[in-house]
Order: sequence, then structure tokens, then C-alpha cells
Amino acid sequence: MVHHEPDEATADETSISTQPPSYNPSQAPTVYKVGYPQKKNLATEFTNALRETFFHDNPLKQYKDQPGSTKLKIGLQFLFPVFDWGRTYNLNKFKGDLIAGLTIASLCIPQDIGYSKLAYLDPQYGLYSSFIPPLIYAAMGSSRDIAIGPVAVVSLLLGSLLQNEVDHENNKEEYLRLAFTATFFAGITQAALGFLRLGFLIDFLSHAAIVGFMGGAAITIALQQLKYMLGIRNFTKETDIVSVMESVWGSVHHGWNWQTVVIGFTFLAFLLFAKYIGKRNKKYFWVPAIAPITSVILATLFVYLFRADKQGVQIVNKIKKGVNPSSVHKIYFTGPFVVKGFKIGVVCGMIGLTEAVAIGRTFATMKDYQIDGNKEMVALGTMNIVGSMTSCYIATGSFSRSAVNFMAGCRTPVSNVIMSMVVLLTLLVITPLFKYTPNAILGSIIISAVIGLVDYEAVILIWKVDKMDFIACMGAFFGVVFKSVEIGLLIAVSISFAKILVQVTRPRTALLGNLPGTTIYRNTEQYPHARHVPGVVIVRVDSAIYFSNSNYVRERILRWLTDEEDKVNADGLPKINFLVVEMSPVIDIDTSGIHALEDLYKNLQKRGIQLLLSNPGSAVIEKLHSSKLTEHIGNNHIFLTVADAVRFCTSKSMQEP
Amino acid sequence: MVHHEPDEATADETSISTQPPSYNPSQAPTVYKVGYPQKKNLATEFTNALRETFFHDNPLKQYKDQPGSTKLKIGLQFLFPVFDWGRTYNLNKFKGDLIAGLTIASLCIPQDIGYSKLAYLDPQYGLYSSFIPPLIYAAMGSSRDIAIGPVAVVSLLLGSLLQNEVDHENNKEEYLRLAFTATFFAGITQAALGFLRLGFLIDFLSHAAIVGFMGGAAITIALQQLKYMLGIRNFTKETDIVSVMESVWGSVHHGWNWQTVVIGFTFLAFLLFAKYIGKRNKKYFWVPAIAPITSVILATLFVYLFRADKQGVQIVNKIKKGVNPSSVHKIYFTGPFVVKGFKIGVVCGMIGLTEAVAIGRTFATMKDYQIDGNKEMVALGTMNIVGSMTSCYIATGSFSRSAVNFMAGCRTPVSNVIMSMVVLLTLLVITPLFKYTPNAILGSIIISAVIGLVDYEAVILIWKVDKMDFIACMGAFFGVVFKSVEIGLLIAVSISFAKILVQVTRPRTALLGNLPGTTIYRNTEQYPHARHVPGVVIVRVDSAIYFSNSNYVRERILRWLTDEEDKVNADGLPKINFLVVEMSPVIDIDTSGIHALEDLYKNLQKRGIQLLLSNPGSAVIEKLHSSKLTEHIGNNHIFLTVADAVRFCTSKSMQEP
Repeated sequence: MVHHEPDEATADETSISTQPPSYNPSQAPTVYKVGYPQKKNLATEFTNALRETFFHDNPLKQYKDQPGSTKLKIGLQFLFPVFDWGRTYNLNKFKGDLIAGLTIASLCIPQDIGYSKLAYLDPQYGLYSSFIPPLIYAAMGSSRDIAIGPVAVVSLLLGSLLQNEVDHENNKEEYLRLAFTATFFAGITQAALGFLRLGFLIDFLSHAAIVGFMGGAAITIALQQLKYMLGIRNFTKETDIVSVMESVWGSVHHGWNWQTVVIGFTFLAFLLFAKYIGKRNKKYFWVPAIAPITSVILATLFVYLFRADKQGVQIVNKIKKGVNPSSVHKIYFTGPFVVKGFKIGVVCGMIGLTEAVAIGRTFATMKDYQIDGNKEMVALGTMNIVGSMTSCYIATGSFSRSAVNFMAGCRTPVSNVIMSMVVLLTLLVITPLFKYTPNAILGSIIISAVIGLVDYEAVILIWKVDKMDFIACMGAFFGVVFKSVEIGLLIAVSISFAKILVQVTRPRTALLGNLPGTTIYRNTEQYPHARHVPGVVIVRVDSAIYFSNSNYVRERILRWLTDEEDKVNADGLPKINFLVVEMSPVIDIDTSGIHALEDLYKNLQKRGIQLLLSNPGSAVIEKLHSSKLTEHIGNNHIFLTVADAVRFCTSKSMQEP
Repeated sequence: MVHHEPDEATADETSISTQPPSYNPSQAPTVYKVGYPQKKNLATEFTNALRETFFHDNPLKQYKDQPGSTKLKIGLQFLFPVFDWGRTYNLNKFKGDLIAGLTIASLCIPQDIGYSKLAYLDPQYGLYSSFIPPLIYAAMGSSRDIAIGPVAVVSLLLGSLLQNEVDHENNKEEYLRLAFTATFFAGITQAALGFLRLGFLIDFLSHAAIVGFMGGAAITIALQQLKYMLGIRNFTKETDIVSVMESVWGSVHHGWNWQTVVIGFTFLAFLLFAKYIGKRNKKYFWVPAIAPITSVILATLFVYLFRADKQGVQIVNKIKKGVNPSSVHKIYFTGPFVVKGFKIGVVCGMIGLTEAVAIGRTFATMKDYQIDGNKEMVALGTMNIVGSMTSCYIATGSFSRSAVNFMAGCRTPVSNVIMSMVVLLTLLVITPLFKYTPNAILGSIIISAVIGLVDYEAVILIWKVDKMDFIACMGAFFGVVFKSVEIGLLIAVSISFAKILVQVTRPRTALLGNLPGTTIYRNTEQYPHARHVPGVVIVRVDSAIYFSNSNYVRERILRWLTDEEDKVNADGLPKINFLVVEMSPVIDIDTSGIHALEDLYKNLQKRGIQLLLSNPGSAVIEKLHSSKLTEHIGNNHIFLTVADAVRFCTSKSMQEP
């Protein structure tokens, strides 16, 4: 033991002290009291709350202290980032974008044709959706790496939701019109969320639920391709694995076409091998990128030369030539289909957003630039609104193509423009050549594309980190695979919300003990050598106290106390006279919380136990004060630290033994 | 400055130290590292989570280490508390219960007749509901002070929900059957919530929303009474204030009956005066308690003697004599009304629960005993199930009668039995005497009863404590008053949920500074004299990091950093090299949160800033570890306290200037 002066610190909220805490009351002239924040008026408080909720990224920061013309310029650049990056665009950047654009174009053309089949639409609509939307995005979007166009999961979801309302075979025209209506409302939803700065709503779908949903959707999509891979003509319209497998085995004797099977699986093997090469050596990223178009060319040639279509190999047959026709008149603005289209649009729009924003954020982190989620939503929304009027269906950011775009060295959204131009050329010139493309090759391209969505590494990590997350993930996965995309999505959303609610209703609490030789108080479960202070129970509440948990918190604190009292009685230790509630993690409290604390205080008083509070935050101390609870409990019973509170208890106990 | 040994503590997590922190790296052999909790296996972890969610009150505690027969006895006492308190019942307690029981009986009889009118049911159903349900509750309930029977708000809600489905005038029999069906399902809902230990679901209605809803309902109920108080025959079926006022003024010239007005308002004045007396002196609590029955007797006599009913004064006319008939055969168990009855039952059952549990908790706190919310729900549910089969409609705990019961000195639920017996006597003998009771007197009794539900003091407190709560309160209030009870309830629930969601998505963060002379780090807004440490930014995250807020948290931390960097650049201070994230309040993290931290780490690395973590809790450190993030960040960059982390930064800065 080292001698020390009376007014000297005795121990330390650093972990290096070796002295026991000293409880000499004469030492206790508390220098720091709990701080009261400055009283803010209502308007300021309200503005602050609004700003943190909707404008936490401070989007108007750059406008501050600028003259009017500059403000206009910045505003334009904000809405159309092309004015920003366009000014520094040069040949060097263009070279990167050109290569990337050509690569993703070669990848997107066969994918587009396949994905439009998932949405039960004619193949040209997939190509249309890779022409107009990327152009709009290039002008308005802020991600430099995202590749825009139709994607597998949204196509599947759109197809199955639309099919619930209208049959695509018997009511082809109505189906198409409803598809455009849904696309229109998807765009409106996206733009509205961004404009109203409600982008945070997509954060309510948890990462784990998305991983499960995406994996399940990928399996479902792959299973759907068995129709084309095996050449089955009578295929179920259900998407669950049981129906599909029944359909597959039911037609094993007379429904499979061996020529189709050979073509399909040969090219699937080729594509997977190409993927493997690309994965093993990042230098060969272009191998899997151009493998699909190569397969299409080879397979088409093969079918054309050997007239395999006469042997029962199904082919694409006809893609309408020419550029997107207008579809404004096809959108339903009145009638019962408006509501249906709206609902489908909202769901698909949200999923599209989730995917695009996730991609945008991923690549922005890699290249260390910021993207503004809300602005992205406005860009994606506008792109889909315009798309719905030009015969496109819902487009968003594609995982697989964005990754290729990134690796091919894209620099700006110009790569999307290049891709769009290639698609235009295809629409104008090459579409007739796709006539003999076998459906099986499209199936194998889709399978090799969606296989990457089954993110088993993420699932393993989720399992390791959080078991509840794992349940959410599996729930969404099995929901999609065994029931349908909608059910899987519903499960994902429900589990996500249930998790929030449980988290809010059942916050953790912990019993604190003293780390010997310091005045640090820590959870006795995490730090088993932390020691109890005789006669004092210290409980930490690990959450804001709100109406949803106030009763639980009160009862749980009392249970800690009862448990400790039982232990004390059993061991014949001194009676408990003080309950310290450590409130550092309690960042806010509402009226229900105040009532719970008041009840706790009264209850303890009846038992002859004094309630002490330690380190209430600014919002909490203010509310305790305005509800006069500080006066009940006593201002001298509220401390800056647990150590101060314990010192108070010990000195009191010494005075009244 | 005091000289001190190298291994001595330099400062203190108590607020009494007066020395500046010293940053001598040679002092820094960290004794305490962040603790890793013992690895629990999955089953234990899962059981723990389940227990905290559903059995946090440890209901089985008393069964532990007991022989079988004792377990059975305790089990019976648990289900029927009457076996518990019954054993110590004595004459002295009975005296209290008798007085209380007679008092609440005199109060409940006129109220019951009036409330059944709110539910558009014949008056005897109100009395029925004050006979059977209190008996069941007396055997099963654990609150000693609650008075059971029909209540104003639930009656109003039930009436307006039933009226939406079936008209009570044209389809009287169907309406009645649907009422019993709703009561049955209300009971099932309540019992199921209790049995499945889902009682915490009622906590999702915030205190503020309830205050607003109750106040609005009270105003609506009072407005409805204008029909009887003014003697209007053609009254609107809407409940909003605009329709009611139109109805009132529209009939001002030929629809009002002055005799009715005189009777009604005279007795209302009398009742309010009685209430005032009771409030001024607690000794006279019985004055407002017996005033209603006195008014009924006086008014009935008056009408009978002067045959005022011939002058247009509306009277009750006929109440069916006799005890509750069976109504089992009237409950719909098949057909379209089952679903409707179920929905109405769930809503009314939840509101009934909310009211009963709130009352139970209030009085339990006053008398310092515990009530088990889930057990209460089973009791209330059973009581309503039995009630639905014996011609009762939904009964629950009444605020006004419970308060009278408490003040009249009730000791056990026997007071409910006394009340029930008086009601039985009334049903068997006295009902014919109510024939000449004027409706106006019932109206004035209801008005004087519900007026107490407008809890303006609570509203003032809510305004002072939490402005967002105030908005919720007013939203529910105006929703009920200007639209309908359902809309008000919907607003109350929606605002409550929105508050939870905003709270979860936008947790607070704070910039920490050093309190001079200590090693305490506190929010610089709350403690303006807290000093920044040069070259280090310390941010505290005040919430668990979950999928719903992980992106926000990451972006917000970066914004704190950017803001600080701007300040540092403007003032020419040393460059920022370290970012310390204080994680004490971060009690949990999920996979999304881990990803956000990882992104943050990568982002900071690109900027040449080192990320340090301080005091992660047990759940967090375990997950950081299993996701290998601790290895990325470096185990030596994770500290027990902010002070340790800052010490590390300062010593590093000294080594590499």
C-alpha cells in the first residue's frame, strides 16, 4: 500500500490501479455533479429530433454560406451527379468504362432474356429494361459501380405476384399491362421513399433475413430452370420445391428431351468451370463474364446447324426487333387493377431498393466514397417510372453484373451507358439471330448466375455470431423454398420485426461488482472476480426505459434485489440497505419509465432500502427533473459514477451501524 | 501535484480526484483486460433467452425443492389465490370487505344500467355482468382491490364495433348473439395471452397513448349522454363530436325536453358536488360513492309521483327480472359471425386487459404486494368465458369503482362477492322498481363517472416530460373525439409502434470528453467543461447495434469524425489519428452490426485512423470474437475503459511524433 494524501484519488477508472477503493467519507467533497443539459425550447428539440431521424447525413451541409448561383449549381449536381463527375471525365476513365461496359453488356443480354421468362414476360422486355433505365441512372445515380437492369429475384417475385392476379397465358395483354402498372408504382414508391427521406425503412429487413430470402429465391429460380434444362413442356406453375420435384419426376419417362439435357448440362458445366477459373485468379475475371455470351453463340450455332429444334429442343423462337415502344397508355390509372398494381409495385420496389442500396454501399465502401441512400432511391425510382412508360419492367442493381463491372475496372456510370448502347444495337440489329438460341442455354446461364446468391459463408458466420439471426435466416430460406417467395418474404419481415420487439421489451440488466483494486464496476457475469459490496446491490439497466419495457425493468430490478437478499440471508451477511441503479446505458426515458422508477422508489422505501441513481444521461436527468422525481429520490442520491454512489453508501453505513 | 509511485493509480472514476490524467506509457501494464464470458452451449443460451422473454418473473421459484403434495398445494393456490388468502380470513377483514362491497354495489347498479346502453344492450345485461364475473374473479384473481364489472370505455368500444357489423335496432337478436360471441373470444384472448405468457404484448400500448385514448373516450361517452340529458329522440349513431353537436343543435327547437333537462342537470350538479366533497376530504369518500344510488332513488320517486314520463321524460321502462339465463347456445361457433366476433373480441379483450392490469398494478404498488400479470389475464379470461355463457358482456376492472373499493377499506376480493350478492338481490327483487328511473339520471351518473378519466394532470406531466409522448397522447385523444373510438385506438397503437421503430433506428450517439482532473469521460453536451483529447475522437454509441440501426450508427460515427476533423483543421490542431468507440451501452450486436463495424474499420484504415473499442459487454465481445473482428481490429486495440484507450493513444502519439 502506498501512502496517499486525503484529497488524492484512490483508484481509477483505468484498469492499472492496484489499490483497494477507500471509503473515507471525509474525502467525499464531490467535485463533479451530474450535469443538467441546457434547457432547449420545444422548437429546437423538435427540429433536432426531425433532423436526426430524416437528415442525419446532413445533406444540406454544402449549401451553407454559398451564394444563390452556387446553391443552384450544387443543387443540380446533387440531383444529377453527372454534372459533378462529368467535368473531370477523361479518356483514361473512358477506357475503363468502355471495357467494363462491353463486358457487362455481354453478360446482361442472355441474362435479360432469361430473367424476363422468370417474370413470365416476352424476352424483348428484358432487353428493353436494360436500355432505358441504365441511361436514366447514369445521369442521376451516385454509385459508380452498380450495373442496372432486370435481376433474377425481383423478376421471380414480380412474376409470381402478377400470376396470382392475372394468368399470363390466358390474359397476356392484361398481364403485361399489370406488369407496367406495378413497375410504375414501384418507381413511385422508390422515389417517394427517397424524397420523403424515409429510406431508413428498408433497414427494417435484417441482413440475416435477406441472406435467407436471397438464398431461397436462388434455389427456387434454379429449380424453375429445370423446365428448360430438361425440356419439360407440362411444368407446374407453383414455385415450391415439392411441386417442382413432382413435376420433374412425373415427366421423367416421356417428358424429358435428352438432346436438351445434353446441351443444357454441357454448357452449365462449362459456365461453372469458367466461374471457377475467374474465382481462382482475379486476373481472369473476364472468363466467367464472357462465358455466357460465348455459350449462347455456340449453342445457337449448334442448334441452327443441326436443326436440333426439330428434335424437340425448345428455342427462343422470336424476339421482337426494334427499340422500346411507348407504354404510357398501358398503365392502369383507374379500375380495380390500380390497387393490385400498387401493392405488387410497393413490394417489388422495396425489394429492388434493398438490393440496389446494398450493392451501392458494398462497392462504395470498397472504393471509399459515400453514397446517399435517399438520393439513390430517387434515382432508382425515376428510372423505373420512366421505364414503366417505355415498356420496361422493374430494373434495379444486379449483384453479379455489378461485381463484374467493378472488376472490369469501371470508373463512372458511363459503363452503364456503354452497356445500354450495346443493348440498343442488339435490339435494332441482332435480335433475329436469337431465334435458334435453345432455352436450355438460358436456363444454364441463370443457374450459374443465381448460384452465387446462395451465400453459405454468410450463413456460417450468422450461425456463429447470432443464433436468433440464424433462425430468421433459415425461416426466410425455407419459407421461399417450401412455400413461395411471398411467404418467405413475409417470414423474413415478421421475424425481423419480432426481433425488434423482443429486443425492446426485454432489455438486459446486469448485476455489477467491484473489480478489486479499482473503482471500476462491471458485470459480475463477464468479470467473475468482480466483488459484491456488502449491503449494496448495484444493477445496471442496459436500455432506454420506455413504455414497452418499463414494467419489465422495474420487476427485473426487484428480482435482482430479491435474489441478492436471499443470498445474503443464506450466508448471514449484512442486510441490504442500498440499491444503486447504474443508468449510463439508459439514454432515454418516457412517462411510463418515470412511473416505473417512481413505483420502484416507493416499493424500496417500504422495504427500508434507499434508491440511488448513477450517471443518468442528459435526456434522462432532464425528464427526472421535470417530473419532480429527482426531488422524491433526493438530489443527493444521484451520482456521477457508481463509485461515488458506493462511497456514499459505505459512509452512511459507517455512520449508522 | 502529489508525487506518486509508478504503479499507482493516477486518477479516478469517482469524481473527487483533482489530478490530471498522466499518460506515462511505462505505467501501462494493463491489469484488467476485457472479460470474455464463459462460452455457453446453444441449448443453455436458447433457454436463457426464452426464460427472460416469457418467465422473467420466475413463477416456478416457490416450487423448487418441494415434495409433490406441497407442489400440488402451491399449484392450486397459484391458480386459485382464494386458497391462499382464505386461510387467514377473519371477521375483521370481513368487516372491511362488507362495507367496501356494499359501497361499490350502490355505485355499480346505476352505472351498469347506463353502460349497457353504451353497448346498445338492454339494461339487465349490465347487471348480469356484475353478478357472475366478480364471483369467478374473486376465486382466481390476485388483486385485492380491483372492482369487477362492465366499464364505460369497453362498453363504448364494444357497442361501436358491434354496430359496424349488425344494427342493434333492426337485428336485435343477432346483435346480442354477436355480443356474446365477442365476449367469448375476448375471454379466450385474455386467457390465452396469460397462459402463453404473452402478457407483455399489452405493454406495447404506451402510457401516453392510453391517457389520450381514455380521455377521448370519456369525452365521447359524455357527449353520447347528451341524448338522455336533453331528452332528444332522434340522435345520431355516429360518435364523433361534430355529428353529435349537429344532432344536438339540430334538435334544439323541438327536440329538447325541458323537464328532462332540469332533472338531468340538477342531479349532475349534485353528483359533481358530492365528488368535490369526496375529493376535498378523503374521510367523506362515501359521499360520492352513494350519491348515484341516492340520485336514482330520488329521481325515480319524483318521476313516479308526478308521472313526469307523461311529460316526455324518458324512463328506463322495463328491466327483465330474474337471474342470468344461459347463453351458451347464443354464441356463434360457426358461420361468418365467428370471424367478426373474434376480431371484436380480440380488440375489446386487449383494451379490457390493459385497463384491468393497470388498475391491479396501481393498487398493488400502493399496498405493496405483487400481482402476476399473466395470472391476472388467465383469471380475467376465464371470467369472461364463463360470462359469455351466462348472458354477460365483457367485464373488466373499473377505475372509478376500484378506487372507491380501495378507499372504503376492502381487504380481499370478498368485497366483489358482496357486491355480486347485492346485484343478485337487485335482479331477483328490485328491478321492477327501476321502471320509472329517468334515463337522464343515468346519463348524469355516467358523465360524473367518466369525467375522472380525463386525466389532465397526467397530460401536463406528459407535456413536461416528453414531447413525443404528448403528440401520441393528443393523436389518440383527437382521433377518438373527432373520428371514432376505433380510429383513436388505431392512432394510439400506430404512434406507439412508430415510436419504438424510430427509437430502434435512430439511437443516440455522443462525443465524449475528459472531465479535467479525472479519467472520467462524459458527453460533452451534458458536461460542457469536458475537454477533448488532442488527436483522439471518442464517440459513445448509446444502443445495441442491430440491423435496423447499423448503417445509421456507422454513418453517424463517421459524421462525428468528419465534424471533428473540420474543427481541427480550422483551428490548426494536431491531426486526428485515433477513433475510440465507447461501447458500454452497446449491450448486443448482430451480424449487420458486425458488418457495420467492419466497414467502419476499413473506412478508417483508408484514412489512416486507428479504431479502438472500449468496454464491450459480454455478448458483444463474444460475437466480435466469433466473427474474427477482434483479430482485424487487433486484441490490443480493445480496452476495458476509455481512459485505458486514451492512454494507449497518447503513448503511441509520443512514440511517433
